[in-house]
Amino acid sequence: MSAHDLDGAIDPHGDVSVDELALAAELAGSGERAASADIAEYALWLGDDALILSQQLGAWITYAPELEEDVALGNIALDLLGHARSFLRYAGSWDGRSEDDLAYFRDEAEFRSSWLVEQPNGDFAQTIARQFLVSTYMLELYSALRGSTDATFAAIAEKAVKEVDYHRDHAVQWVLRLAGGTAESRARIIRAFADVWPYAAELFRDDELIDRLGDAAVRPSSLQAGFDAVTEAVFAEAELDIPAGSASAGGGRHGSHATGLGHLLSEMQVLARRHPGATW
Amino acid sequence: MSAHDLDGAIDPHGDVSVDELALAAELAGSGERAASADIAEYALWLGDDALILSQQLGAWITYAPELEEDVALGNIALDLLGHARSFLRYAGSWDGRSEDDLAYFRDEAEFRSSWLVEQPNGDFAQTIARQFLVSTYMLELYSALRGSTDATFAAIAEKAVKEVDYHRDHAVQWVLRLAGGTAESRARIIRAFADVWPYAAELFRDDELIDRLGDAAVRPSSLQAGFDAVTEAVFAEAELDIPAGSASAGGGRHGSHATGLGHLLSEMQVLARRHPGATW
Repeated sequence: MSAHDLDGAIDPHGDVSVDELALAAELAGSGERAASADIAEYALWLGDDALILSQQLGAWITYAPELEEDVALGNIALDLLGHARSFLRYAGSWDGRSEDDLAYFRDEAEFRSSWLVEQPNGDFAQTIARQFLVSTYMLELYSALRGSTDATFAAIAEKAVKEVDYHRDHAVQWVLRLAGGTAESRARIIRAFADVWPYAAELFRDDELIDRLGDAAVRPSSLQAGFDAVTEAVFAEAELDIPAGSASAGGGRHGSHATGLGHLLSEMQVLARRHPGATW
Repeated sequence: MSAHDLDGAIDPHGDVSVDELALAAELAGSGERAASADIAEYALWLGDDALILSQQLGAWITYAPELEEDVALGNIALDLLGHARSFLRYAGSWDGRSEDDLAYFRDEAEFRSSWLVEQPNGDFAQTIARQFLVSTYMLELYSALRGSTDATFAAIAEKAVKEVDYHRDHAVQWVLRLAGGTAESRARIIRAFADVWPYAAELFRDDELIDRLGDAAVRPSSLQAGFDAVTEAVFAEAELDIPAGSASAGGGRHGSHATGLGHLLSEMQVLARRHPGATW
């Protein structure tokens, strides 16, 4: 027999992951209260943004131009997947659906992700431009959500904010590196921001759902000033102009999505749908 | 300005990752000695196995049948990528090539990965069967390599063995779960082991390179007994027979590879080769 004791491996301790333990603790902290319909809907807003962005970044794991960046984008994708799982599990506590039900068995119109995270990876510069805008928004969002009157949201945000802080730093570094690099890299990051900028506006639009939730949620419009301050500081440092394009209408929070989402969902869902309940 | 201080983000502290810091410490511990040609070749054996398996598992990140498994396989892929980077960087210290040169600009015949890691993902059961055999081998290998007379190998192994210990536990859990699940899942894991089993033999074949390296390397044949003990224990627990198929000739250590590797490499290398030195 090997020096490595197999007892721990064979002992059926189940498949409890760190995230499950963390969520159990979070739910315990909030008295394991199930979400209301509105809370569940808001959890989908947040969870679907994280889920879709995670899937987008995951596609880079085999394709990034440097091994180091492979690792960085892979880690960010897994962080976001962790946040998505926490939010989706909480959303599902309302009507008894699992995180997997919500990820794999909703149709496109039932997703609540915003158009910005649904924009295609494009080239590396476009992935970075999207990542900078989304992580700047998420850092403002989760910072504020730590003060939610909903204990589960507050606990998830407390954990997520530390990770998103790193994600934003990573994106800032790349924006500066591309803007200050070669003429080609600078042209690419300028074009990338011009492409994705119009989709940021949707993130700051208020909604009747938010009115109903009161201090359990974060009012999207309240995050605009912090987002503007950060983007202006980074654009100034990078000597980039704020793009001029007008805001996109979006519509993701009500199930109307950007063109690419359907294809992304079909890839993400095909295996689970082919063998429901099975593991291949 | 936002409450989040941007100083840390804008300050050009570079892109130092945890892995780089760890490797710097490892190299410092070994007196920053560059690898010899034989040491570099052995580092490629180990690094390429980790790299190819990482790329294979990375493909599951968007496709795993459960979000939890998405996270688990993604984390394992990133662990392996970290091991690969350490070994490739050490290999490159011989002739001045970077880890990216070695990952993206070697042709198929220059890779040193074994046929087992090159076997296709197949269905989830086949991925798990391959993963169980490889991680059982890697756990024996890195445990022994901690005693290498080469300080860099010893340091990399010391870090890797803890992670591979988790990888093997994860694979054991799934082997037991599939073997003890439905008739369908049991049939699939039996077929999967029959498919991948013949490729394990290559991992335990000695070589003139190993003779020359002496106690800096681990003699492959010395790992067979530990591997056999673990696989027999797990197969017994799972009530599976050891597959009967005869050993494959392999040839990966000398640049002759399984059919799937060419396609995998072309996907992994296309971006870096299209724009050498650029970041998109």
